[in-house]
Amino acid sequence: MALECLKSHCCFSGLTAFYQHDSTSTKTPMKFSVHRPEEKSEIKNAIIWLSGLTCNEENFITKAGVQRYLDGTQTMIVCPDTSPRGLDLPNEHENYDFGSGASFFLNAKTQGYKDHYQMEDYIACELVALLQKEFGVEKVSIMGHSMGGHGALVLGLRYPKLFKAISAFSPVSHPTQCPWGKKAFKGYLGEDESLWKTYDATEMILAGSTHPQRILLDQGLADNFLEEQLLVQDLKEACREKGQELELNLRDGFDHSYYFIASFVESHIKHHLSAFES
Amino acid sequence: MALECLKSHCCFSGLTAFYQHDSTSTKTPMKFSVHRPEEKSEIKNAIIWLSGLTCNEENFITKAGVQRYLDGTQTMIVCPDTSPRGLDLPNEHENYDFGSGASFFLNAKTQGYKDHYQMEDYIACELVALLQKEFGVEKVSIMGHSMGGHGALVLGLRYPKLFKAISAFSPVSHPTQCPWGKKAFKGYLGEDESLWKTYDATEMILAGSTHPQRILLDQGLADNFLEEQLLVQDLKEACREKGQELELNLRDGFDHSYYFIASFVESHIKHHLSAFES
Repeated sequence: MALECLKSHCCFSGLTAFYQHDSTSTKTPMKFSVHRPEEKSEIKNAIIWLSGLTCNEENFITKAGVQRYLDGTQTMIVCPDTSPRGLDLPNEHENYDFGSGASFFLNAKTQGYKDHYQMEDYIACELVALLQKEFGVEKVSIMGHSMGGHGALVLGLRYPKLFKAISAFSPVSHPTQCPWGKKAFKGYLGEDESLWKTYDATEMILAGSTHPQRILLDQGLADNFLEEQLLVQDLKEACREKGQELELNLRDGFDHSYYFIASFVESHIKHHLSAFES
Repeated sequence: MALECLKSHCCFSGLTAFYQHDSTSTKTPMKFSVHRPEEKSEIKNAIIWLSGLTCNEENFITKAGVQRYLDGTQTMIVCPDTSPRGLDLPNEHENYDFGSGASFFLNAKTQGYKDHYQMEDYIACELVALLQKEFGVEKVSIMGHSMGGHGALVLGLRYPKLFKAISAFSPVSHPTQCPWGKKAFKGYLGEDESLWKTYDATEMILAGSTHPQRILLDQGLADNFLEEQLLVQDLKEACREKGQELELNLRDGFDHSYYFIASFVESHIKHHLSAFES
């Protein structure tokens, strides 16, 4: 199946649209949403947004209010789904934090999952190539929230030349040390914990990974997941130790919701636009 | 049950919160959402938002991106649910356009519905009094979308001194002449069509109703409901004939969705803020 536009809506000066295509990475149909400013203008850049647990291609594009911040730019935003869909793998649909809606954006190695949960390849290779071919995109960057913030950090650090900037809201920052990460990595990667560390932003920084641009993070201090699951301070400490430039904004009173994301997404968009220009 | 705060989230400079209370008008619990800018500032005004068919207190507050436009003002927004809930009246849950989620914001007269679907009283009396008592609101205004745009027009015209301004997106403008309106009015008001006209903005204007402020409407020209259900041109013609000031913005390419509302809600907020100041 070629790229199919499922629906589109005028929004601010551009078009918000939903697409579906057959993915060679996941061997399933995959959906994503986009917002393109100024329908007739030339698009040069794309920011890829990765959502958190239980989300799909709709959450960010309907709730974050990002469209207005792209008006007048040559940058689109692209929001892929958070996992393959339509499968029935062992244990895929039993929990909100594993399987469907919870891919953690890695290439799975375990039986069953390795055949479809190739989300690192899907995002960093297949989706980027599609954006270049179908939308004329030249530069890409990556951002996300929670599990998707983990995805943005890890993919941005794995492909620092491809992704011109990295930012995240409330990212799962040290997944080998938190319950969500341990469960996901065991289920997708197996028992070899040395492999887990290659998908853990804090461990990657400690092992020498770098990104040439300052990484931008926003974290709400009323976020119920901060202490047990997100561990953002571990990433901050690793960046400090290794000299990776990081801006971590701690926001009093804000929680883990899209109300938080909507409040600060403008500054993230500016961060990415600035990186595209440099 | 006193007013109960179900949840609240920091958003931009204020708080987005969800409330529930026992309504004397509907004899059911009723929910609404609010956004209050600047938690510590004094709130003086409230804009009441009425949503469309199938919606509840969540749609507008999560999708319209309105919070940022209230920053720095003394105006809150209040989004009530679109009908009583938790009942099981005859035919209440069978259709998207009648009963639950589809009150049309009137005081019902028909058997069963008259005991609970007193939504005009709920909005214009009970909710307004609650806003005064619980939030210190002095002035109110009203806006809405589709069925809720109808509600904003009709309640604004019925209470022109109470509601300082009226605006609507894609309102059901001449409900006695469209399928949605005929079905709802028959079900809630019975067979007496003279009564129907008292809840029809176009017929009310033709019969002499006025509002001291310019009414602001936005209508997308790619809206699939425009010709059969909304009939905005009928309202425009009635206002022209009777001298009611109206600004009708027809928007090329825009449809009936919240992507449309989000694109133009800033100008509606300014319209209401300006009326509060005059």
